[in-house]
Amino acid sequence: MPTTTLPASELTSLAASALTTCGMSAAAADTIAEVLVTADMFGIHTHGVLRVPQYLDRANIGGINPHAEVRATRIAPALALVDGDNGVGPLVGSAALDAAMEGARTAGIGAAFARHSNHFGPVMPYLFKAASEGFAAIIASNATTTIAPSGGKATRVGNNPLGWGMPNPSGDPILLDIALSVAARAKIRAAAAEGRPIPDTWATDSSGHPTIDPHAALDGFLQPIAGHKGYGLAVMVDLFAGLLSGAAYLDKVSSWNLAPERAQNLGHFFILVDTKLMADSSDLSARVDDFAARLHSVPAADPANPVRLPGQLEMARYHEQTREGVTLDRQDVRALEELVKARV
Amino acid sequence: MPTTTLPASELTSLAASALTTCGMSAAAADTIAEVLVTADMFGIHTHGVLRVPQYLDRANIGGINPHAEVRATRIAPALALVDGDNGVGPLVGSAALDAAMEGARTAGIGAAFARHSNHFGPVMPYLFKAASEGFAAIIASNATTTIAPSGGKATRVGNNPLGWGMPNPSGDPILLDIALSVAARAKIRAAAAEGRPIPDTWATDSSGHPTIDPHAALDGFLQPIAGHKGYGLAVMVDLFAGLLSGAAYLDKVSSWNLAPERAQNLGHFFILVDTKLMADSSDLSARVDDFAARLHSVPAADPANPVRLPGQLEMARYHEQTREGVTLDRQDVRALEELVKARV
Repeated sequence: MPTTTLPASELTSLAASALTTCGMSAAAADTIAEVLVTADMFGIHTHGVLRVPQYLDRANIGGINPHAEVRATRIAPALALVDGDNGVGPLVGSAALDAAMEGARTAGIGAAFARHSNHFGPVMPYLFKAASEGFAAIIASNATTTIAPSGGKATRVGNNPLGWGMPNPSGDPILLDIALSVAARAKIRAAAAEGRPIPDTWATDSSGHPTIDPHAALDGFLQPIAGHKGYGLAVMVDLFAGLLSGAAYLDKVSSWNLAPERAQNLGHFFILVDTKLMADSSDLSARVDDFAARLHSVPAADPANPVRLPGQLEMARYHEQTREGVTLDRQDVRALEELVKARV
Repeated sequence: MPTTTLPASELTSLAASALTTCGMSAAAADTIAEVLVTADMFGIHTHGVLRVPQYLDRANIGGINPHAEVRATRIAPALALVDGDNGVGPLVGSAALDAAMEGARTAGIGAAFARHSNHFGPVMPYLFKAASEGFAAIIASNATTTIAPSGGKATRVGNNPLGWGMPNPSGDPILLDIALSVAARAKIRAAAAEGRPIPDTWATDSSGHPTIDPHAALDGFLQPIAGHKGYGLAVMVDLFAGLLSGAAYLDKVSSWNLAPERAQNLGHFFILVDTKLMADSSDLSARVDDFAARLHSVPAADPANPVRLPGQLEMARYHEQTREGVTLDRQDVRALEELVKARV
């Protein structure tokens, strides 16, 4: 696939310009573009700037509000409720992150719970921004339902993303961003296209029984990681991000794919701890460096595949693309350029 | 196995009396006994009153401080650091829970990070107490290392317990309490004793490769749930509970089994959100009831095994044992009675 490489600042401007074609403010477009480009720099291209045309499509059919006024209401010194006004997810997510940081600066720990939102992208850009300002974080969102509860045969739980971050004042933060299914549906689709069986841990057929047939799996349900443990985590994330925030939850969440013209009313939560109150920065760095070294010193079962820290590969890509520019499929960059050109 | 059934209050008094034989205060013994009996009432007997003789053994050889003065220091309105003074884990855990509740009452969300602690029992009793007072909670601890990092061949991560709770003001809370290995070592030991193979997802041999041989598994390492996802969760829990609290982390945690005379310096964290600020109690109950009903309405793959909520079985046991008394192996009750008798 032909690629294009351009500086992050240029890609951010381009993505922001494309976003403004639906009438949103330049400030909102800049905020959203920054999240998406950071995702691309981590190598999470599925959640990067290639989402821009999708956002614009949804704005055009009324599924997303391009003029959203995201409102944060502080209900206690460390606790904010955020109403996303059906804005683009990364706009709502960024406002909620800011509100949680404000609470944590005031009270040591702070939280924001957001409702009336949409898919906020990957968790890692928010974790990274929080860590850059000294905050340890737990951040998550609910999502369209694709997973069956353990033992059940109907989708009723989202493949909810869950992230945890720990800053390192003089080095790379440690960032975990996971979804709660064993495998994404895209991997099952790829196996079906190639006629390959899938591991029986990925999905069940429509009767709720594990299957190695990718076609039966596509008619069935994704399996949560670790059986009832992953199902339980997905439930708890939805209780915090969806139910407690006042958003939709479980199958009340509207599907982006099946009903793109409807507001999804997704919910998120952001919990941030101000590590600067708990340790001075050189002490925290020394401990995080020691923690990392203890894991890196573990001998590998396969020498070609050394032990890594959560987020290590993504941080390495981030540094590389900061130095050398962001590399994307050429068609994704062209799509943005054409959106901008079509407006002029 | 012969059993004994006695009222919870009687079992709590008995366990507390037994605990005071090592010289700890009656107040400390009551606090610890309450956590352990709650664990028994949930059916988590491995972490119930049968631990009392182990605590006393460790106190006798100096591994635990029976006269611990647990100290909570408030470093910000919503943030407390707790020094457990090497006290019995549930004593430290209960003090940290109280400190986190105090912060959450003040600021909407509150946290306590505890160091110089020991095994604090299961997470569920703390989640339950928090939920009973209207707090949603995320609570976790680090632990002795038994898990190898993904791709590694040395134990370096604890099988860290992680819990999430959501209150239901007029019904049962939803409580998740999970460890981060696929299977406990006890299950592998049972398979070895019976000469049964184990699933290749439970453990690796000492070279770091998955094995179905339980003997090779006992010489090797527990596998985290969901590969790099569970490894990542175990790392993040340790970063919050161990590193950020100022406790030991990874292989710096001393082993209860291998070095029972040494302080473990375990760490915990308690994050509590005051749901009473976010929804009135009838509204929250209605939503949690609806959430539960949506999951219970999912048809089961196996009709004998209906879809359940996290903590549902444990809450059912709790109600049953509240009504009918707590049923335990007779020998575990006798052990407590003999400890009390030996003192007199």
